[in-house]
Amino acid sequence: MKKNFWKKTILAPLPVLIVATYDENGTPDAMNAAWGGQCSAHHVALNLSIGHKTTKNLLQKRAFTLSIANLDNLVLSDYFGLVSGHKTNKIEVAGVHVSKSVFVDAPVIEEYPLTLECKVVSMEERFGEMYVVGEVLNMQADESILDAAGRVDYDKLKPLSFDSSARTYRVLGETVGTAFKDGEKLL
Amino acid sequence: MKKNFWKKTILAPLPVLIVATYDENGTPDAMNAAWGGQCSAHHVALNLSIGHKTTKNLLQKRAFTLSIANLDNLVLSDYFGLVSGHKTNKIEVAGVHVSKSVFVDAPVIEEYPLTLECKVVSMEERFGEMYVVGEVLNMQADESILDAAGRVDYDKLKPLSFDSSARTYRVLGETVGTAFKDGEKLL
Repeated sequence: MKKNFWKKTILAPLPVLIVATYDENGTPDAMNAAWGGQCSAHHVALNLSIGHKTTKNLLQKRAFTLSIANLDNLVLSDYFGLVSGHKTNKIEVAGVHVSKSVFVDAPVIEEYPLTLECKVVSMEERFGEMYVVGEVLNMQADESILDAAGRVDYDKLKPLSFDSSARTYRVLGETVGTAFKDGEKLL
Repeated sequence: MKKNFWKKTILAPLPVLIVATYDENGTPDAMNAAWGGQCSAHHVALNLSIGHKTTKNLLQKRAFTLSIANLDNLVLSDYFGLVSGHKTNKIEVAGVHVSKSVFVDAPVIEEYPLTLECKVVSMEERFGEMYVVGEVLNMQADESILDAAGRVDYDKLKPLSFDSSARTYRVLGETVGTAFKDGEKLL
């Protein structure tokens, strides 16, 4: 039996994306965002509230890094979404280590094992949010999350997802099927 | 030790979105897409290859439903991504049950327990993909995936994620934290 929920919108899984930027003084900031994802082979999309410090920084610097929140950094990742960068130097309070990306004018937070370094190629207000598209110039991954073949291994990365129904975080679980293969049973 | 992968783009978790549309003859079609997500409180975004039958249908009908691929429908969901709607009536071959949405001119695939009914509010080519924004007019959820409070329960839904590194499907796993709360440890 199906039940209607009208405009309520549940889409799963949502990611937990850590967006890091510099402000005009070179001070690093970070926020977390669930409304975003991949939008082409080498582009990522973010939809951010207009008022965020990150949004202001992006307009100015046209660059960001995007790290994948993971189980090992759960508390840190939630903290980046709790506090406003307008009031607090979150990077300093959290005590994380930051270096400047060699590809774009944005900070890399060393604690995250997987980070995309992106230049802003499009930024405009859409449906009440700032829609930002970033071109990925480099992905950096820590060797600790790679498998024997040198690929990113999600069992090691343990990416988080935001459960917007229960307002909790979940960790991505086990492999249950092979893409572009399991559906052959219906051919 | 961090390793550079240049333009290689891994973003996790990606969803597995089942996009269902009608063509000009009212024949239902479905595809799966991992490049999409939520883009505002009541909007969802898709980035689809220009050549898809779905893209043509969307241009014509300006409506779609978006179902969340789940563990119970893994084979079906992969099948929708294996075969082109230009050549095959996938709905017929898969033997699924379809009804017309009462909110938009698009088919609801009854087998999926969670479906968003959307009207297209924006559609344009961006970075080589068709960028589609849908406004959610209704969400329908089967009672079997609701918790005691009437909310969507991800432990019952078991949403899938596309692991683009290993090209596998993973199921969303256990709850590991509380959002907007666990970060307070750093305040």
